[in-house]
Amino acid sequence: MTDISGYIEAHLDESLTRLGEYVGLPSVSAQRQAIPETAAFVKSLLEAAGATAEVLEKEPPGHPVVVGELPGASPYTLLLYNHYDVQPAEPLELWKSDPFKMSRHGDMYFGRGISDNKAHLVSRLLAIAALRAAHAGPLPITIKFMVEGDEEIGSAKLLEFIEKHRERLAADVALGEGGGTDPAGRPLISLGVRGVLHVELRARTAASDVHSSMGNVVPNAAWRLVWALASIKDADERVLIPGFYDAVRPPTPVEEEMLRAVPPEEETQMRSLGLQDFLGGARGYEYQRRLAFAPACTIDGMGSGYQGPGSKTVIPREAVAKLDFRLVPDQRPDEIVAMLRRHLDARGFADIELEAEEGEFPARSDAAHPFVRVVRETAAAVYGLQPVVLPNSAGTQPLHPIMHTLDVPIASAGLSYYAGRAHAPNENIRTGDFVLGTKHVAAIIEALPPAG
Amino acid sequence: MTDISGYIEAHLDESLTRLGEYVGLPSVSAQRQAIPETAAFVKSLLEAAGATAEVLEKEPPGHPVVVGELPGASPYTLLLYNHYDVQPAEPLELWKSDPFKMSRHGDMYFGRGISDNKAHLVSRLLAIAALRAAHAGPLPITIKFMVEGDEEIGSAKLLEFIEKHRERLAADVALGEGGGTDPAGRPLISLGVRGVLHVELRARTAASDVHSSMGNVVPNAAWRLVWALASIKDADERVLIPGFYDAVRPPTPVEEEMLRAVPPEEETQMRSLGLQDFLGGARGYEYQRRLAFAPACTIDGMGSGYQGPGSKTVIPREAVAKLDFRLVPDQRPDEIVAMLRRHLDARGFADIELEAEEGEFPARSDAAHPFVRVVRETAAAVYGLQPVVLPNSAGTQPLHPIMHTLDVPIASAGLSYYAGRAHAPNENIRTGDFVLGTKHVAAIIEALPPAG
Repeated sequence: MTDISGYIEAHLDESLTRLGEYVGLPSVSAQRQAIPETAAFVKSLLEAAGATAEVLEKEPPGHPVVVGELPGASPYTLLLYNHYDVQPAEPLELWKSDPFKMSRHGDMYFGRGISDNKAHLVSRLLAIAALRAAHAGPLPITIKFMVEGDEEIGSAKLLEFIEKHRERLAADVALGEGGGTDPAGRPLISLGVRGVLHVELRARTAASDVHSSMGNVVPNAAWRLVWALASIKDADERVLIPGFYDAVRPPTPVEEEMLRAVPPEEETQMRSLGLQDFLGGARGYEYQRRLAFAPACTIDGMGSGYQGPGSKTVIPREAVAKLDFRLVPDQRPDEIVAMLRRHLDARGFADIELEAEEGEFPARSDAAHPFVRVVRETAAAVYGLQPVVLPNSAGTQPLHPIMHTLDVPIASAGLSYYAGRAHAPNENIRTGDFVLGTKHVAAIIEALPPAG
Repeated sequence: MTDISGYIEAHLDESLTRLGEYVGLPSVSAQRQAIPETAAFVKSLLEAAGATAEVLEKEPPGHPVVVGELPGASPYTLLLYNHYDVQPAEPLELWKSDPFKMSRHGDMYFGRGISDNKAHLVSRLLAIAALRAAHAGPLPITIKFMVEGDEEIGSAKLLEFIEKHRERLAADVALGEGGGTDPAGRPLISLGVRGVLHVELRARTAASDVHSSMGNVVPNAAWRLVWALASIKDADERVLIPGFYDAVRPPTPVEEEMLRAVPPEEETQMRSLGLQDFLGGARGYEYQRRLAFAPACTIDGMGSGYQGPGSKTVIPREAVAKLDFRLVPDQRPDEIVAMLRRHLDARGFADIELEAEEGEFPARSDAAHPFVRVVRETAAAVYGLQPVVLPNSAGTQPLHPIMHTLDVPIASAGLSYYAGRAHAPNENIRTGDFVLGTKHVAAIIEALPPAG
């Protein structure tokens, strides 16, 4: 690996300069910002790496997908999945620097989307460049790219896109959008994801805000919403929607064993998040179990009435809450929406409007696939530490359409770390993680196809 | 009354010119605008009416109070309470004319604060001028004035002011800041007010927003606030704070009778507010009972996390709700704050921060006081319609410190009407209401002290 490692280190600065340009494109999918420019920029990145690349349209309302291919000596194919869209940067006042101008402090680089997910694509392209420099001719295996622009808003129409381009995207194995290390620096490999369902609940009452002296005769949208929300989950964190937990698949003994082997990280996490405690005082296996095998129901935001300084005596006419549900196999977002609607109706909240996005299915790879061994062993070799392997991570990526339509196992590998603040102000990466993650991806490609 | 009526009609234009100058002073107390100029202008108005007048300081943060006296043949005293401050004019774009330049369209005059409360003072001074012209010497009774500058922001330090100047303000009876007519043109007389208490509830959890994939291990400020709010009032509109209703004074038979006599207005109100129904389908006496004799608990506004377009997967670190409680005799704002804090602690919400303003006490005059008869009978005579009398109105004015420190009954009389848009854009009065309201005040003064 000397040549490859040397190449990566020698070309690090060049790669980070490219990353700075990429971060400078404010590709906030929720706000439909800078989407075509960023897709074009990604195409140019893939082409600069020697791949053919094309910007393909998804069905509306999907943003375009950049698809690329770098043919290898064998048809054995690794698909790299990434996304070029980012979360909104708000609240802007909490950023220490412009979120859309990459800035450096010591060995850290800051910017919206830098960790999630822009640096991962740039790192993978650096790994490929290193391998191309090390190999005289083509790489031993074929690499394919799929870089989408809707990951942060639910990957609308990705399933349809993959089904339509099934041949073009066909692969043997795949790497998900990223990966990284735990607080102790151990590589963290995840073999799946939880699904997600976004819903918006809205209460409407009067035609306009009404003076609050009528507060006990005029219906109040804020109260209606509060009561509807409180009917969905109780203060013990139990989701009260009938049937919600029915499809939750219990972990297999192998999966449970994996989770029990995860080194404790809760104390570090608690300090980093400024928390008194985790919910229910969860620690060890229970903490991991909740994140991997249990669903979640989160209020992401809510608003109603007067939110300015001081007081205003109004009965709000409208109130909105945004929620997301994290789903585990074999929960289905479409079924959860139907259950939620039935629940609201049954509990006296037929007036609460429910708008749901399509959602994403949970996905979990077969832990016994030989690809999993390759990712584990290369991680151990590159990082010098035994990796932590999760049957699925707590978060969501659109792995289900890839895993099931293309019939591939998917693992993670990358450069994220515990304090990278994805989705929050001051999102960042560290140079050392970038180098190690890049070497790991290079090592995985070198080790494919798996022996035996 | 011919002379007096004739004087009022003959001097109407002059009075409205004076009102235009008064409206031109943008005395927005919330923004501390034009306060000293307006106090000085009010002093000049009182002096022009023949009264002695002085601008007296309130304790900080209170604005100055204009106090005046017009000695009469007898020491029997009527106190007139008014305020010279006005609500902010925002949203400016909804005004059809400059809010601080009085404008006329037909028989309507527009301007911020014209109805609440500037025209009421000008009208009362016109009534007094008419009476002075009709009487050779001094008026039969003494008139005192108290015109404050903090009514729209909670009348800070008014109690302390009245206590300090108790002798100077001593009176037998008082008129509140205004009064007016209902949609059918019937004079509406109110003998008191509900109190108000503003509180802000705040939940804080992590040091920053956290990715929602940790939604079932990381505490969520929005959920904490929702559960705390739902613990305060249930979906049947019952306030769940222990002791909340204990001090609610039941109506006397006379008060109940007054409310039963209020002509129905609910259907008109419902249409005007665009409502399907009032809470609990309240109609008739039940509707009036809720507004006069029952307390209310209103969410005026709330906010947490992401409220922009689309979705964002965050666990909010902070959530805020603004509430107001409308209080009835003998509820006390200070006691309600203490009960709310105890309730939150007892229900497991010690983490919810509670910030409360001082609040205003409810106040209700004795319906059997002879002064009430005077106000009713003169109203019937001037308007030619039986008045509607409310033991107390649904809204809040600082009547408690006047009523209880000076030991006087207080009634309303004035020129407001149902579409006067107090606190809203295009606030207005009608000339006919101004004339009738002025005649009513003159008739009240003429009828004092009550016979027998």
